[in-house]
Amino acid sequence: MKQASLYDRLHLTHPIIQAPMAGGISTPELTAAVSNNGCLGMIAAGYLDSKALLKQIKEVKKKTKNWFGVNVFVPNDYEIEDCALHTSKTLLEPIHESLQINQLDVSLPESKHDVANYHQLIDVIIQENVPVCTFTFGLPSSDLIRRLKEQDIVMIGTATTVKEAIEIERAGLDMVILQGSEAGGHRATFLHSEEEGLIGLMALIPQAIRLIKIPVIAAGGIMDGRGLMASRCLGAAAVQMGTAFLTCIESGASDIHKQAVTKATDSQTTLTSSFSGKKARGINNTFIRMMQKHENDLPVFPIQNALTKSIRTASSNQNNREFMSLWSGQSPMLANIQTAEELIERVMEEAEEIWNGI
Amino acid sequence: MKQASLYDRLHLTHPIIQAPMAGGISTPELTAAVSNNGCLGMIAAGYLDSKALLKQIKEVKKKTKNWFGVNVFVPNDYEIEDCALHTSKTLLEPIHESLQINQLDVSLPESKHDVANYHQLIDVIIQENVPVCTFTFGLPSSDLIRRLKEQDIVMIGTATTVKEAIEIERAGLDMVILQGSEAGGHRATFLHSEEEGLIGLMALIPQAIRLIKIPVIAAGGIMDGRGLMASRCLGAAAVQMGTAFLTCIESGASDIHKQAVTKATDSQTTLTSSFSGKKARGINNTFIRMMQKHENDLPVFPIQNALTKSIRTASSNQNNREFMSLWSGQSPMLANIQTAEELIERVMEEAEEIWNGI
Repeated sequence: MKQASLYDRLHLTHPIIQAPMAGGISTPELTAAVSNNGCLGMIAAGYLDSKALLKQIKEVKKKTKNWFGVNVFVPNDYEIEDCALHTSKTLLEPIHESLQINQLDVSLPESKHDVANYHQLIDVIIQENVPVCTFTFGLPSSDLIRRLKEQDIVMIGTATTVKEAIEIERAGLDMVILQGSEAGGHRATFLHSEEEGLIGLMALIPQAIRLIKIPVIAAGGIMDGRGLMASRCLGAAAVQMGTAFLTCIESGASDIHKQAVTKATDSQTTLTSSFSGKKARGINNTFIRMMQKHENDLPVFPIQNALTKSIRTASSNQNNREFMSLWSGQSPMLANIQTAEELIERVMEEAEEIWNGI
Repeated sequence: MKQASLYDRLHLTHPIIQAPMAGGISTPELTAAVSNNGCLGMIAAGYLDSKALLKQIKEVKKKTKNWFGVNVFVPNDYEIEDCALHTSKTLLEPIHESLQINQLDVSLPESKHDVANYHQLIDVIIQENVPVCTFTFGLPSSDLIRRLKEQDIVMIGTATTVKEAIEIERAGLDMVILQGSEAGGHRATFLHSEEEGLIGLMALIPQAIRLIKIPVIAAGGIMDGRGLMASRCLGAAAVQMGTAFLTCIESGASDIHKQAVTKATDSQTTLTSSFSGKKARGINNTFIRMMQKHENDLPVFPIQNALTKSIRTASSNQNNREFMSLWSGQSPMLANIQTAEELIERVMEEAEEIWNGI
């Protein structure tokens, strides 16, 4: 078992990592509450600039003396395609009207700017001596890996297939998060098509652990002691939970998002790329259904994300769940509104019960 | 835990059920070998008539004194749509040519004939006093449930969502198989769209067991002791394994199918309805890729199944893996060519190791 070394390396009391949830869900309050309760809290820097990240790190440091981590998105090259842009604008226009949004010209993200921002985020992580850095959507460069290793920062990659897990180990990262098809939010797939990267954890973990040596962290649909113990049987040393923390009091998710999750059933989440240009799992709603047919004609990530931002914001402000991205994993029926402390206690108690009861 | 009662009720030494694999994969040799090794062997009657089923039951009874079961497909009403039929024939014609098949007029299945056949299969199960009957693609009628209950035949339904599991319990069935999105072969979904019924086991089991009391059998991607113990942690009393038995010596799968599975990786399976008219998971190949765009324009199950039969047979006979249905779950990297006895021993040994090692 790789459990002991992972506990030490991540300074954990419990084998639980809070999934970084970008767009304001992972608040400094949530990150610190998780870290203060023996788990690893995470800051989601995916959509932040270096200034905003620095601010969040300082806030978290004020609230906890324990370890926490930062997640970054590895930028991928992209170009703006006029045709896709036109399609998207045409489809979004009637939604702007119905939500009474005066959509001004959106300033579109630029690939080279994303890369520069990513390097600035890493600079902040090094400068602030953040002990753990996780990566989504790809691998950091060997230069970057060398810099982080020099600072003894724990590097964790995110894989959705066995091949991706092998590449993460080969690149020299310390651990790997295996994201199952059950997971809420964005798919981390980077070496395959999004369809090929949809492997359930029951299949993904036991296949991966036969071929890699670094510790595995299981992510996707895990929200209770049962999921925690099952993940450990499959070969994971720890779990990463997103949706379970999303409905916590300390999370920055809107009340309407939290309510949508706690009221949803297992069959009500779906995969869509219409919000951001990249496949992500959330609760089905009008926006997803309207856009479904056109999904493959829309701009890539993060351009589509920029284009839908005003819609998502207005929908949330108007308490209208039909045009928001209601990210959720496949276990919404296990969600509760509670504090992070209550959630962690409950999961650990249940894990022990399961263990003793089998 | 519902483990003890399930062991008794199914006369099991080990909590393993062999998945019924229609189309000649579940041979009497496989069924009997599984039952002779303390697990539950299954006859797949999905595509059989009553005469063929009777023959298989008699063969299995010659080879084992232990309990075994029969799986039936619950027939659903369907009609032949001329347009879909025309589309399918047009698309399949060039494949017939390339495989040098002289396709004569296929006699198409009829809904009312399927229903009559289903009732004849049940008659054989009762008459032969088969102790266990599992159902796929729907619920048996209350009349039928009453008849089987009178004979004390254990009835097991198949669910892909929490709602389906609840309906199976409500109808009075004794147990439920929860089929995760990881599973190979046909999706059992009957109350939802096929997309809605794709829940990973890590999410499906813990949500379902909170709302049902009957024992749960986990199915999908489970091929080793890790998967068995993980399923038990999640709340399942036993597991059903398909792909793991498909590559066994006693299975009737062609060598080319067995080889394709043992050589595949986790990301190489996909869902397709092009072979049968109903979504099923198998290893990606030329046929699936060629038909993908047209999937929604093809006839429903089992009409499309009848239309592709000659292609699947010819492809197999020609050792050409590109036009066969290479059903497989998402864990092909765990598959081995071995006897059923070796597989069962290995799984149980590993389960104990996992248990002691955590």
